[in-house]
Amino acid sequence: MPLSDLTAEELLAYRSTAEEPAGFDAFWAGVLSGPPAGPARFEPVPTSLKTLQVYDVSLPGHEGQTVKAWFVVPAGSTSPLPCVVEFPGYNGGRGLPEDCLLYASAGYAHLFVDVRGQGSGWRRGDTEDLAPADSGPQHPGFMTRGIQDPAKHFYRRVITDAVRAVEAAKAHPLVDPARVAVTGISQGGGLTLAMAGLVPGLAAVAPDVPFLCDMRRGAERAATGPYQEVAGYLKVHRERVDGAFHTLSHFDGVHFAKRASAPALFSAALMDTTCPPSTVYGAYHNYAGEKRMELYRFNGHEGGESFQNAVRLRFLAEHLHP
Amino acid sequence: MPLSDLTAEELLAYRSTAEEPAGFDAFWAGVLSGPPAGPARFEPVPTSLKTLQVYDVSLPGHEGQTVKAWFVVPAGSTSPLPCVVEFPGYNGGRGLPEDCLLYASAGYAHLFVDVRGQGSGWRRGDTEDLAPADSGPQHPGFMTRGIQDPAKHFYRRVITDAVRAVEAAKAHPLVDPARVAVTGISQGGGLTLAMAGLVPGLAAVAPDVPFLCDMRRGAERAATGPYQEVAGYLKVHRERVDGAFHTLSHFDGVHFAKRASAPALFSAALMDTTCPPSTVYGAYHNYAGEKRMELYRFNGHEGGESFQNAVRLRFLAEHLHP
Amino acid sequence: MPLSDLTAEELLAYRSTAEEPAGFDAFWAGVLSGPPAGPARFEPVPTSLKTLQVYDVSLPGHEGQTVKAWFVVPAGSTSPLPCVVEFPGYNGGRGLPEDCLLYASAGYAHLFVDVRGQGSGWRRGDTEDLAPADSGPQHPGFMTRGIQDPAKHFYRRVITDAVRAVEAAKAHPLVDPARVAVTGISQGGGLTLAMAGLVPGLAAVAPDVPFLCDMRRGAERAATGPYQEVAGYLKVHRERVDGAFHTLSHFDGVHFAKRASAPALFSAALMDTTCPPSTVYGAYHNYAGEKRMELYRFNGHEGGESFQNAVRLRFLAEHLHP
Amino acid sequence: MPLSDLTAEELLAYRSTAEEPAGFDAFWAGVLSGPPAGPARFEPVPTSLKTLQVYDVSLPGHEGQTVKAWFVVPAGSTSPLPCVVEFPGYNGGRGLPEDCLLYASAGYAHLFVDVRGQGSGWRRGDTEDLAPADSGPQHPGFMTRGIQDPAKHFYRRVITDAVRAVEAAKAHPLVDPARVAVTGISQGGGLTLAMAGLVPGLAAVAPDVPFLCDMRRGAERAATGPYQEVAGYLKVHRERVDGAFHTLSHFDGVHFAKRASAPALFSAALMDTTCPPSTVYGAYHNYAGEKRMELYRFNGHEGGESFQNAVRLRFLAEHLHP
Amino acid sequence: MPLSDLTAEELLAYRSTAEEPAGFDAFWAGVLSGPPAGPARFEPVPTSLKTLQVYDVSLPGHEGQTVKAWFVVPAGSTSPLPCVVEFPGYNGGRGLPEDCLLYASAGYAHLFVDVRGQGSGWRRGDTEDLAPADSGPQHPGFMTRGIQDPAKHFYRRVITDAVRAVEAAKAHPLVDPARVAVTGISQGGGLTLAMAGLVPGLAAVAPDVPFLCDMRRGAERAATGPYQEVAGYLKVHRERVDGAFHTLSHFDGVHFAKRASAPALFSAALMDTTCPPSTVYGAYHNYAGEKRMELYRFNGHEGGESFQNAVRLRFLAEHLHP
Amino acid sequence: MPLSDLTAEELLAYRSTAEEPAGFDAFWAGVLSGPPAGPARFEPVPTSLKTLQVYDVSLPGHEGQTVKAWFVVPAGSTSPLPCVVEFPGYNGGRGLPEDCLLYASAGYAHLFVDVRGQGSGWRRGDTEDLAPADSGPQHPGFMTRGIQDPAKHFYRRVITDAVRAVEAAKAHPLVDPARVAVTGISQGGGLTLAMAGLVPGLAAVAPDVPFLCDMRRGAERAATGPYQEVAGYLKVHRERVDGAFHTLSHFDGVHFAKRASAPALFSAALMDTTCPPSTVYGAYHNYAGEKRMELYRFNGHEGGESFQNAVRLRFLAEHLHP
Repeated sequence: MPLSDLTAEELLAYRSTAEEPAGFDAFWAGVLSGPPAGPARFEPVPTSLKTLQVYDVSLPGHEGQTVKAWFVVPAGSTSPLPCVVEFPGYNGGRGLPEDCLLYASAGYAHLFVDVRGQGSGWRRGDTEDLAPADSGPQHPGFMTRGIQDPAKHFYRRVITDAVRAVEAAKAHPLVDPARVAVTGISQGGGLTLAMAGLVPGLAAVAPDVPFLCDMRRGAERAATGPYQEVAGYLKVHRERVDGAFHTLSHFDGVHFAKRASAPALFSAALMDTTCPPSTVYGAYHNYAGEKRMELYRFNGHEGGESFQNAVRLRFLAEHLHP
Repeated sequence: MPLSDLTAEELLAYRSTAEEPAGFDAFWAGVLSGPPAGPARFEPVPTSLKTLQVYDVSLPGHEGQTVKAWFVVPAGSTSPLPCVVEFPGYNGGRGLPEDCLLYASAGYAHLFVDVRGQGSGWRRGDTEDLAPADSGPQHPGFMTRGIQDPAKHFYRRVITDAVRAVEAAKAHPLVDPARVAVTGISQGGGLTLAMAGLVPGLAAVAPDVPFLCDMRRGAERAATGPYQEVAGYLKVHRERVDGAFHTLSHFDGVHFAKRASAPALFSAALMDTTCPPSTVYGAYHNYAGEKRMELYRFNGHEGGESFQNAVRLRFLAEHLHP
Repeated sequence: MPLSDLTAEELLAYRSTAEEPAGFDAFWAGVLSGPPAGPARFEPVPTSLKTLQVYDVSLPGHEGQTVKAWFVVPAGSTSPLPCVVEFPGYNGGRGLPEDCLLYASAGYAHLFVDVRGQGSGWRRGDTEDLAPADSGPQHPGFMTRGIQDPAKHFYRRVITDAVRAVEAAKAHPLVDPARVAVTGISQGGGLTLAMAGLVPGLAAVAPDVPFLCDMRRGAERAATGPYQEVAGYLKVHRERVDGAFHTLSHFDGVHFAKRASAPALFSAALMDTTCPPSTVYGAYHNYAGEKRMELYRFNGHEGGESFQNAVRLRFLAEHLHP
Repeated sequence: MPLSDLTAEELLAYRSTAEEPAGFDAFWAGVLSGPPAGPARFEPVPTSLKTLQVYDVSLPGHEGQTVKAWFVVPAGSTSPLPCVVEFPGYNGGRGLPEDCLLYASAGYAHLFVDVRGQGSGWRRGDTEDLAPADSGPQHPGFMTRGIQDPAKHFYRRVITDAVRAVEAAKAHPLVDPARVAVTGISQGGGLTLAMAGLVPGLAAVAPDVPFLCDMRRGAERAATGPYQEVAGYLKVHRERVDGAFHTLSHFDGVHFAKRASAPALFSAALMDTTCPPSTVYGAYHNYAGEKRMELYRFNGHEGGESFQNAVRLRFLAEHLHP
Repeated sequence: MPLSDLTAEELLAYRSTAEEPAGFDAFWAGVLSGPPAGPARFEPVPTSLKTLQVYDVSLPGHEGQTVKAWFVVPAGSTSPLPCVVEFPGYNGGRGLPEDCLLYASAGYAHLFVDVRGQGSGWRRGDTEDLAPADSGPQHPGFMTRGIQDPAKHFYRRVITDAVRAVEAAKAHPLVDPARVAVTGISQGGGLTLAMAGLVPGLAAVAPDVPFLCDMRRGAERAATGPYQEVAGYLKVHRERVDGAFHTLSHFDGVHFAKRASAPALFSAALMDTTCPPSTVYGAYHNYAGEKRMELYRFNGHEGGESFQNAVRLRFLAEHLHP
Repeated sequence: MPLSDLTAEELLAYRSTAEEPAGFDAFWAGVLSGPPAGPARFEPVPTSLKTLQVYDVSLPGHEGQTVKAWFVVPAGSTSPLPCVVEFPGYNGGRGLPEDCLLYASAGYAHLFVDVRGQGSGWRRGDTEDLAPADSGPQHPGFMTRGIQDPAKHFYRRVITDAVRAVEAAKAHPLVDPARVAVTGISQGGGLTLAMAGLVPGLAAVAPDVPFLCDMRRGAERAATGPYQEVAGYLKVHRERVDGAFHTLSHFDGVHFAKRASAPALFSAALMDTTCPPSTVYGAYHNYAGEKRMELYRFNGHEGGESFQNAVRLRFLAEHLHP
């Protein structure tokens, strides 16, 4: 795929023009007020792994609905560890325990959290999404589920789940709550930015080729991937263009970024047609904390893959001291 | 698209080997026991149309949830008319009133019914789907929503809605309940077969290039369209192959067909890669009532389009005398 | 499909730089001088329709060659009605009578006219095109038939047919000649603009996502659709670039628009790769009469579909009072 | 492209089941009765070539309409030469003189003949096609021009032109009429088979990956190329399936092959999706003269290219002794 | 992708008809005679990993040329471990150390070996291939490098490297040479079969969706992937069909399988268009040792992914007792 | 394909910003110092051609490795002729003698030279490439073979071969060394520019849609063709972006162009996605000799084909007087 968004030079100058919806902070304060519905359960899972111990996690998310995760630590860990909370890319899930080896092998506690409803597109998930009444009809996928109302939208529930997951990680006896980082690729990167904006006291965040940023631009420019669901919905529901983007603006990384303070490592890819690099730079330039960008010049949405893993592990080590 | 399924000659000989699940009749008897949750509401809609009168319909479907429809009659109708109940193709909805001109212009009362949740793919729908707890994660779309359990599956709700819609049509004072036909294209054709198997006393049915027939074969052979959602789900949830097809077998037209008695006009298309003609013939050969097939030899899933409209109008006129 | 032409803001500022060929008015005066070759014939057609009466029309077009159309009126009409003349999109035809329900159901007389030669791509046509001597070889399709000479070009004949069709509509006893509108989608929109420029006294025109506008830009930018035939021809006949566009400039909506006076409702679609929105705005900004634009922001060449039908019916009602 | 038609072994056993239309011989006797409309004109063309002399040919074809060709001979030729008459592939034309070097460089007189109307798809042609009245509407391209009636069909005119071209070659003083061969690739191969069936006394014929053979099978199986025009037409004109193939059967190589007697070199390609090898073997097995097949096992419609040129030159040398 | 090869039932009955080249055993005896060119070097690599220790390996392969690998063991291992030797899929390489976590986390020594020349398509490799004189020209990729002669072919060198790698693993002090297994996906699976046929005393082998099996069938049927390189070469070098497959037959898993004795776990995928399941079953049915097949019914070439990892870990544990 | 690079107007203004590597002239002086490894051999080849005589050429190229070519002259030539040296496009080779008719038929001696390693993609080649040690791993194809070091890179060898081929042509008794031109399409055009910059005394050069120009821009913008190999390599070897382009800059036509003096005829195509026209204009504007550009406005990478042949033959005749 050749270049189809801005050049590296233009990205440095680009600033998002996305407008923040009125009442953004109040919306999220309301959503997250009150305690979680209860504690998370962690059950040890027998696996073929010898160096790592895996726990099957059930944590109460939005309205107490169960969200599944894996919690992985080096075998025999007894004292609190720094922790990495991770969210999957769109339509992926927590997979099997053997899919979650990296961070625990590097000496972290690792919480890998399902995104509700997903996990049937490329890696298995085990968590369902229950849409509330008045969610309206939807385009296939998850982007337009509840798009008529921020209070009903899918990502209101997902972000609530994610906050609850970070809280569950912090509360675990094997986790040092002062050394928790959040990361993820694509949708996982978008959720990382939401955590950076909503959860105080994170030690570091690392959003890779994040989705859910500068979403109207994304829906107008992305040639592949889930931004196209929004475009597909608006192709049919022609009168709802402004309303749909008003709803989505409550979940947009460009607004969460302005509220963030944790040190951040971003990555973007110049040939990315799923999360065009300009949408990532839209969030990056807004990011209020200390920040750094890895730009992959000949990659698409796969981004840095294991190169970025190595960079990210070094970045996390700087801030979390595993 | 060249031929990729059976030839016309082979289709005459092909018989589906799909197995009926134990308790099929009991399952449906349970689902449909009891009365509808209440009467449907019909509100006149102002439109630009002069020869037709359109009503906005809200009818109580599965668990009383609201299903939307249009009811259209020749302007000034006062005495009971024969009625055509129609369901849309996958991801379509009832659209706007101006999308529903054919049957009323031909002298019928016409009830065009939304499929819940859909209507954001190609023609607008206005009805939402609320999945119950224990629906599980899903592949984008509607085919695998609740695929773990026949009682939770999307089409259990849709078919219930459809039965309630036929009942609402029969109960309307402008409809002669002895002269009600059901029709639809693709998913609408699959629902037509379900009605033929579940609703006694229909005057005629006309499933066109029906979807939801011989579904395992469909999932293995379709190169386009929603059968691929099932294949996509099973690509990830590898251990659920038999379970998924067990669930789907409760909604399969090849089984409904065996229970049908209304005169039927089918159509199929030899180059159809969305609903391969063998899957349609699977239902056709099982169909227990009087039946006729129009086979379009150089068409794909578009099938007969207005040619088939004309054939179908003649068929309906034979049986419903508008 | 993401955005690939100008943004909504840029479209407001864009002006076509297409040059009008010398003698444009004289060319058309010559083509249309003299009376039609004779009266049109209208033969009632038996159909399954009850609320509408359909006539099979044979009208003498270019050099008296027969052009087919359907004429549809509310059943039982006896006094003159406002009339909508409509032309199909590229490679479509008049189809079957049941394809022509909208305008007559809304109280208009409706003349749906074939485009010669076409009607074998997506909806059946019944009219042939006879190319004159010295038409030259051609690329498959109709765009380059006779492209060596404006006098031999396909659209010289088609536009002549269209003018004769409007005249035939006006002359029909069930039509009020002061209340005639012209409309069409894509190619039908291009012909609508030609009628707006050539036929005096139209009550309204409604070109939707019109083709045949700013044609050199179209041939350079369209990624799909019939502008590519011109590009395909010039890929082979490399020395005829200027000549080909000189011929086509005689049929370009950007020039007809300057001569128009009827009130106009345009539509365009931001993601349209067949008739890029800039080519539509090229004609729109040139349009000399009262005008209005519906811009569909997440649609491709399908444009507004039934949404635009509803908008158009309201627009026509304002001007034609059905 | 993997294998999508029969295997090499199956091809040896396959026999076409295409039915010959009644009156096939009478049809062609009628078409070709009477002398050509006049002599061909040969005008020397100045080129950059030193070893070859090129003539611009205008020959009277169907109804005396002008067909263009190049006639090329070794520079300085004075006595009669063996001659190769060649026809182009679909949508190609005679091109420029520099495109016609092979046969004259090998010591033959070479007549390269345009196919009327074509020559705007990949190599320039200079000959137009004038369709007669009652040709009907058509799908883009040439396959369905006049498909309602064998007497009006495009290939009735093309084959007439081709016969006239062979006659013109034979009549030229630099040609030995007893040593004339006919060849061509794809459409050129189909016309070669027509010549083999219609023109007595040919010294050899060499149809390569011939088109226009076993045409119903072609229209049902070809995934690329012009057989798809027939399928496209019948997708719209659903009621004309049998009629269309009846018309085409008058031009089908499987029937011409039965009437042939000249020694023949065929070629076919196992991965050919434009002219599936089974359609070629349909003609090959019917061929009544001495015959040979080159089968290219990993080629698509490009077939043998210059490998086959070399094989063909050796074959021609055996029979024409240049 | 729908089914395009044999059904599950047909696969059980299918047997490869590929012919073994004369002298197969002598060929390999010659290639592998003599000792390796020297010992492998293992250098500890600093990484971010805490639970695992990684070594950078340089081992002498074909003609002593350096082949790179990673050797990974649980941190602090001191006594001999069972070992898994793994080879990458086509165009992949050993990647970064963080890409090699699975087997060492499960308690094995893990040797992940580059394939020479590759590692620039999807995961980085660090090993070059030096083709010998008389390798001839080639199609892009590696499949046809040296295809004129088994002694010059790319896979003669790769398989030699692979044997040397297994020997190097066995010779390492942290490896128990009686408990060595070989595995790999796709090309890695093909090399696994080669090891099964060439290296005595393996404890287990696990080829997943193996490439390099029944290669002529693969080249004729695969719609995606590297078998197409062979088809692409033969499209040009038309006269070398038999010669090319004679060369490749020296590296074909269907022949290695007949010589194998280690217990084997195979996997195949019904929708695999890169390594069609019939080619895998060709090797499976020939396999002379104890064997088991996992068939994934709705997967393409991705096969079982982490599901198969879990199955394979259980299989290895049965045989290697980590 | 619509326009995807600069417009014709923008191309006139565009200038390449590619930086010349330090020591460019010294690099090439070193490479080409010393005499060829020996004389070329010319062996007459029997063909079916009568007007031309063909010789099979073996010439010593880089490090004396054999490079194959065809040498073609008008039959019976005895005195020195002007000569055209030609190089093939990417993945093509010299083909068969019958593929090389144009220049000799026009009165030139014609040397058509293989590119080492290639000739298995579309026209057969007979020359192999032997990569030296330390070439490193590579992406499929030839662009990244040896990309770690200018001294090891594939095009260092190819350009050396090409210089040796021009020298061999000049040394042939049937060639007038003062009247030698160089030409080629795509890769052949890139090599033509290299010859223009490296070989003194050429009478003319004619690069058509040249590849190997402004290569970083090419790798960022080309949507098709071999520039994508560089992008594909850098997608994996993310840390080698600058190093890879440093290596390639030694073979870039934009730098050779500055050193050229022979009269030049360029061609470019506005819709070319393999060699975007801006990359061609980058070289053109840098070209230091007398120059002319043919711009094909509706062509892709096929460019001018036989139109350009005719233009080129006239240009060559002006300068070489055949």
